[in-house]
Order: sequence, then C-alpha cells, then structure tokens
Amino acid sequence: MDLELKYLKLKEHFKNAKVIESCAELIGWDERTNMPPQGADLRALQNSALSKLHHDLVTDSWLGDALIELASASVNLPDDSDICVNVREWIRVFNRANKIPVTLVQEFSKTFVYSQQAWQEARSQNNFVLFQPWLEKIIDLKRQEAKCLANGRVSYDALLDDYEPGATSLELDSIFYPLKDSIIKVLRSCSKENNRNLILGNYPEQKQKIFSEIIAGYCGFDFNAGRLDTTAHPFCCGIGPGDCRITTRFNPADFSSGLFGVLHEAGHGLYEQGLDPDHFGLPTGTAVSLGIHESQSRLLENQVGRSLEFWRFIYPLAIKFFPDQLSNIPLETFHKSINQVRPGFIRVDADEVTYNLHIIFRYELEKDLLSQNLSVKDLPDAWKAKMKTYLDLFPDNDATGCLQDIHWSAGLFGYFPTYLLGNLYAAQFIEKAKKVIGWNNNCLNLDVLSELRQWLKKNIHLKGKRLLPGILCENVTGEKLDKKYFEQYLMQKFIS
Amino acid sequence: MDLELKYLKLKEHFKNAKVIESCAELIGWDERTNMPPQGADLRALQNSALSKLHHDLVTDSWLGDALIELASASVNLPDDSDICVNVREWIRVFNRANKIPVTLVQEFSKTFVYSQQAWQEARSQNNFVLFQPWLEKIIDLKRQEAKCLANGRVSYDALLDDYEPGATSLELDSIFYPLKDSIIKVLRSCSKENNRNLILGNYPEQKQKIFSEIIAGYCGFDFNAGRLDTTAHPFCCGIGPGDCRITTRFNPADFSSGLFGVLHEAGHGLYEQGLDPDHFGLPTGTAVSLGIHESQSRLLENQVGRSLEFWRFIYPLAIKFFPDQLSNIPLETFHKSINQVRPGFIRVDADEVTYNLHIIFRYELEKDLLSQNLSVKDLPDAWKAKMKTYLDLFPDNDATGCLQDIHWSAGLFGYFPTYLLGNLYAAQFIEKAKKVIGWNNNCLNLDVLSELRQWLKKNIHLKGKRLLPGILCENVTGEKLDKKYFEQYLMQKFIS
Repeated sequence: MDLELKYLKLKEHFKNAKVIESCAELIGWDERTNMPPQGADLRALQNSALSKLHHDLVTDSWLGDALIELASASVNLPDDSDICVNVREWIRVFNRANKIPVTLVQEFSKTFVYSQQAWQEARSQNNFVLFQPWLEKIIDLKRQEAKCLANGRVSYDALLDDYEPGATSLELDSIFYPLKDSIIKVLRSCSKENNRNLILGNYPEQKQKIFSEIIAGYCGFDFNAGRLDTTAHPFCCGIGPGDCRITTRFNPADFSSGLFGVLHEAGHGLYEQGLDPDHFGLPTGTAVSLGIHESQSRLLENQVGRSLEFWRFIYPLAIKFFPDQLSNIPLETFHKSINQVRPGFIRVDADEVTYNLHIIFRYELEKDLLSQNLSVKDLPDAWKAKMKTYLDLFPDNDATGCLQDIHWSAGLFGYFPTYLLGNLYAAQFIEKAKKVIGWNNNCLNLDVLSELRQWLKKNIHLKGKRLLPGILCENVTGEKLDKKYFEQYLMQKFIS
Repeated sequence: MDLELKYLKLKEHFKNAKVIESCAELIGWDERTNMPPQGADLRALQNSALSKLHHDLVTDSWLGDALIELASASVNLPDDSDICVNVREWIRVFNRANKIPVTLVQEFSKTFVYSQQAWQEARSQNNFVLFQPWLEKIIDLKRQEAKCLANGRVSYDALLDDYEPGATSLELDSIFYPLKDSIIKVLRSCSKENNRNLILGNYPEQKQKIFSEIIAGYCGFDFNAGRLDTTAHPFCCGIGPGDCRITTRFNPADFSSGLFGVLHEAGHGLYEQGLDPDHFGLPTGTAVSLGIHESQSRLLENQVGRSLEFWRFIYPLAIKFFPDQLSNIPLETFHKSINQVRPGFIRVDADEVTYNLHIIFRYELEKDLLSQNLSVKDLPDAWKAKMKTYLDLFPDNDATGCLQDIHWSAGLFGYFPTYLLGNLYAAQFIEKAKKVIGWNNNCLNLDVLSELRQWLKKNIHLKGKRLLPGILCENVTGEKLDKKYFEQYLMQKFIS
C-alpha cells in the first residue's frame, strides 16, 4: 500500500470516529435542552457506550504502527501540509487516548450525567453538600487522568494541555499575575456613575429571541446551519458541518443579558461554521484550541458587541423592538449602561474588567483542588475569601458562589484559563483586523461585519489545527501573544 | 461457562446493541424536530454509522453458536420463560440481520435522510416528480431487502413480518376485504348531519399545547419521563426507560385535531412507558408488534378520547380553556361534532369509519408497488382512482394525495396494515376491559382511566414480546382476533 492509500485509510478511520463523537455531541446538546428528568439513567448508558466506541476507535491497535510509518514517510513534507498536520494530531490523540484506560473513560461519562444533575440540584437548593461528594469523585477521577498523562508534568498542566495545546501553568502564572494587578488598577479608575438600571424594563422573551436571532444573523451566524435555544447555562455545540447550535438564557428585565449571551455563543458558532467542511473529522478541519475559540466569542461579544460603533448600527432596530423601554434613552447613555463596570457575584454577568478577576481566582482554586492543597469541603469558604480579596464582595450563598458554573461538575479542570487567554487573543486580533480591513470607526454595518468575518475565517477558522495557538497568533498578528493589547483596550475603553 | 453466565453475556451484548439503537432513535427524533436544514449530510453519516454499528453487534459471528447452544440448553424450560423468549427473539433478529448485507443497511440509512427531505419538498411544492426518483430507489432497496428475507414468501410478507410477526398478506386479505364491505355499509348509513364547523374558531397554539399536556397527563402519560413537541407529522419516539417523546401538530382553527394527535401518540407512549424498565434492551422489555402498539394508540384516541363519557369528564376544563369558542356548545353537540363521519383526503384527519378505507387502499397500492404491478410514475393516478372507488372523492393534487404520508419515504412498506390491525385489536381489548375493570358508563374520570391503564400495563405492556401478537390477544380477551368487535363498535357508535 503506498503512502497516499495509507493516509486515505487513516482519514476514513478518524472521520468515522468523529461521526461517533458528533452523535455524542448531539445527545449532549439534547441532554441540556430537551431531556426529561427521568431520562438521565439511559443517557448515562448512551454517553458511556458512545465514548467507549470513540475511545476504541482512536486507540485501535493497528493505528500505532500505521501512524509511525506515515510520520516517517512524510518527514520531508512541509510541517503545515495537510498530511503532516493530521498525522501529528492523530499521534497526539492516539497517545493520549492510549494512556487513559477505557474503564476510566466510561467511569467519567457515567459520572458526568449524575454529577451534573447533582450540581443543578445543589445550585437550585443552594446546598453545596449535595454536590460535594460528586465533586470529590470528579477530582479523584481527574487526578487519575492527569497521572496517566503527566509524563513529568504537574497534574494541572497535563489537563490544561488538552484545552490549550502547549500551555503550562508556569506560563499562565507569568501572564495572569501581573495582569491581575493592572486589571485591579483599571477597576479602581473606572467611572462610578451608575447607568445600569436605566435600561431595565419588561422585555418579552419571544421578542428578545427574535431580536437576538436577527442580530446574530447580521453577524453572520447561519440559521440554516444552526439554531438558538434557551438553557440554564448558555453554550455552543458544534455538532458538525451544517449543524451548529447555540443557546442563551433570557432575562425578562434586561434584553442585553440574553443578547450578549447570543453574541458570545454566535462567535463560537462562526468559528465552527467557518471550519473547512471538506476537512470534517480531520485535525485540519477542527478548531485549534479553546483559547482561540474563546477569542472568537469574546471578540464578537465585546470588541464588536459592546462597542459604540456596533450600537450605532443596531440601536435603531432595538428601539423598534422595544420602544417603551428604549426610545427615551440616547444611544450614548445606552452604551454606557451596557458597559458599566461593577463587581458582581456571577461570572457570566460580569463586565469586561471584572470578568478577568473571576477567571484568575477560579484558576487558582482549581489548581489547589487538583493538587489537594484545598479540600472540596473547604471550597465554599475559599471561594468567599477570593471574592473578598479580588472583588471586595461578600457572597452570602453558594448558589451564586462556587456553584454558579457548570464546568467542574463536567470535569472541566484547566478550562477556565482559556477564557482569559481568549480575551487576550481577541484584543490582539481585533487590533490587527482594524489595520487590514475596511474598518469604519463610525458604524459597524453589515459590510464591516462581513469583512471582519471573512478575515477571521480566512486567517483563523479555515486554518484548523495547522498551527499551534501561539504560532497561529504570530502568523495572524505578526507578534507573539502579548497581554499589552488587552491592557490597552481596557484602559482606552474604561478609563476616560 | 454455565448456562446462566452465557445468558448473562448475551443479555449484556444485546442491551449494548439496544443502547446504540436508542442513540439512533434520539437523533431520529432530533432530525424531525430540531435539525437545521443544512444538517442533513452529517445526519446521513451519523445514521449510517449507528446503523452499521448496530448491525455489526447483532450479527457478531460468535452469536450464532452461542444462541444455538443456549436454545438447546433451555429446551425444557417453559416457552414464555424469560430465557426462552429472549433467545427465540435474538435468533430471529440475528437471522434477519445476517440475511441483509451491511452495505444495504448503510444504503438505507443514507437514503432515508435524503428521501425524506425530497418528500417534504415535493409535498410542500405539490410536485410528485421531485419525490419519484427517491421512491423508485427506496422500492428497489426494499425489494432487495425482501429478497434477502423471503425464504419462499412473497416480498410483501417478508417485509410485513418485521412489523407484525407471523402476519401474512393472505390473512390480511381475508380480514380486510370483507371488512371493507361492512365499513362501506356503515359509511352509507351514517348521519349526514353536519356539526363539524360548529367548534371551529381561534385556538391559540400555546393554550392548545397546555390543554393537551394536561389531558395526556390525565390519561397517564408521564411528562417527567417524556415530552411533547410539534412536528409536521405526529409521532411517538420511545427512546428508552425514562425518555419517551411524542409530537403533534396544532390546527389553529380546531383544537380537537391537535388533541387527538396527542392522545393517539400518548397511547403509544403509555405502551413505551409501561414496558418493564428492568428488561430494557431485551425482547421481554420490548413492544410485541406494531399492530398491538397501534391498538394502544387507537384505544386512547378513539374508544376513550372520542367517547361521550370521556368528554363528560374533560369538557368543563375545555370550556375553561376556550370559553369564547365552546361555552355555547352543549356537550352532546360537541361530541357529535368530533365524531362527524365525512370522507376526506387526509388519513390522519379521517374519522373512525373512513380511516380504515384509507388504510385498505394504501395496503393494496403498496403491495402493487412492491410486486411491480404498479410503477412509481403511475402512483398519483392509481391513488386518485382508489380515492374515487373507496371514498367517492376526486383529489386534485398530490400534496393531499399520495404525498401526504411520511411512510414510504422512510421505507416503511408493510407498515400501513398494522394501523387497521390496531383498530381491530383496540375494539376487542376495550370490550374485555369494560367487563373486568370498574368501568363507569357515565364518566371516564381519573379513577377509571387509572384502572384501564393498569389493566393494559399488566396484561399487555409488561408482557413485552413473551407472546406473539395473536396469542397475546387470545390470552388477554379469551378469543382469537375477530373483526366483529370492531364492526359492532362502528355500528353501535355510528348507526343510530
């Protein structure tokens, strides 16, 4: 069999694995949008069966030799050629999956169905104790996973690497800690003016949904290849070509809350819809990292969605939808209102400044949980202490404290920092975009949005995993990731 | 390995296969409720992958010997013991699946995604030609399937057997043709009084949905283990224990249309929710046949749902929901209105009398299509001729003619007759039920509904596939299936 045929066989094999994974994605979406409460037991069986199938496929014994052979046969091809990229990533997946026993994989997928139910229950009853044993179990499983993968690294880095290839906690520490200081400085200098309540009113959910769909459509989210639903915790689910689903939650008193949720998830959605469908199931047709993914969502939500230029374009339509609530509020006042900086308990409701502090202290807490410097039972108190230190707030319950996020209940340790990396990448990307596309400082109209989207698609989405995140950033912007762009962005926007 | 261990291993294996099938069920439900239009290509890949997996599992080569061994080892156990029932049915599934090449299975699941899209397109554009090549392809595939399974039988019987084990077209002919005559006799004697338009009005969909959910709940459908959605063509999807989903379509001018759709599907749902969850994935925990399944839906829709006694119980609530439309209509007039007999084009909107004629001529047409006595291009004309002969109607388009049903686009040949068998079984079952439970001829209240449901659950649902449909009927009612019960029911109800 010649090289080309062997490559073809591997492509077919991994594409099959991806199709199974896409079934799991879809039933995961269903679990969070439609599943009746008593469906959890069956869902656990389904998740477990599909994850075992996927694991079996990507650890199939013949793959090892085939991959090594293909890697050595393609050693003279350019690093970013399709075959080199795909073989490199397949080896990565194969090695990773082979290090984790299938029993552990199955244990995870069974556990997550129940742990997420327990988390929901605990959150709705404001009772951490209901969740505590599940979180303990998850941390135990994640430590086992990290041990399998560590290869000399600390547990945290072994997990982080899955979300942000190549990143280490040492590197994150060196970015996050100085950043924390500059963010706190911005926070102290922000305007104390309070316009937030000005736009509160009565916004019927159905109208909010239609308005949000129109705006997401303006930004390029394709509803013929996707949909919008409502869930307790917004998310984006890229099932595959032609099917990308986003969700949000609507606040009846504040239409901007649901809208920014939609813009955030639509940013993720644009990335998924912008991947090369001809490379579906291959690393060359897959998003490169969570940090880069998050940069796409933050860019649409913040650099675009919370800008005055964007609202110059869409505010007239917003007034048509909600005349009673908005027609007496001038655009500039409205814009100030949606950009109010004010420490709060909830990460997903946080402004662009304090959001980063939420991430940094979660990053610190999850490192401590994993290294067992912090025991699960002490998490609520540790959380409260961080809130005090970073945001000068005293949470009086866990529902809006350490139970607010879904991540840990789903085993997502090492995931939070990618949110902050996303902010850093977004600021650096938009600076470059403004220089190369026909950016109009007065009004982000459909033409500008389209140019921006095409630029992102060409330079980021269509690249798939061809370059590691850091190299991609250098390629797109001409520079290594530099936090100064984000610092400058915050200072310019929030310190007048 | 002793008998018990071998049996355990097979149980585990077939349960795994069922879990994969349940994933396919769920993504099939999603396809018809939520999938964005461009998701079809990926869905075809997913369907194909899951059906191949399922096929591989139930044809696994080690099963043949294991099943024969287990069958001979359990030869002295009672026929309806769990082990005998399960082994018998596993052998049936194994033999059936082994006769159909996996390439054909995959061809089916890929084809169905596109053929159903083509059918929807053809129906919405009233253009049969768009669907014609797909129907030709499906008939070709079904003929191939039938050939694999025939074993001396005609093609039609080979397919019918999958839906109604043991049934033959000879037997159906002997029931359906005399029945046709007696039904046409009932039709001619029905009241010509027209009350149908009396209840037409403006029924907001959201209110209809809530009302329907309440009524389905009264009948015992458990919404903690299921849900109701709207689709173009109503269906029930029993994904597995704790997750059974029904759909309907609401007519804004007539709330009874959506409600009867819900009651019909909820009848199917009660069967699914009534199966033994401890036998999930095993024949002993699976519905016995489509005919029996349909008896459960028709019984709830018609013998319960269209009875005066049922409306004595729920009409006051209906008036509270829709006072403007209903408060001036006396119960008896309302009851006549929902039982109006009037030939019409659409099967699912048909009354209890003409419905059966719709089925009989579809049965005749699909036999002719399969045997190639009728070519696909001539189907629209053949359909019109049947409508004229049986219902004295002249359809002027195909959208409300031969394009109205989803079945053929999904390859369901041999499926329609089970609808009529369902009517026959339902009439025979309810006669027996009335004799043994505390039936109240004045009012079908929650107590009666509960007793009826428990009787059905105990005598039918929990039996799984322990008895073949005909034997089950004898066991439940003391008699073989006899069409006289249905004839008597129609005559008593519709000839005054």
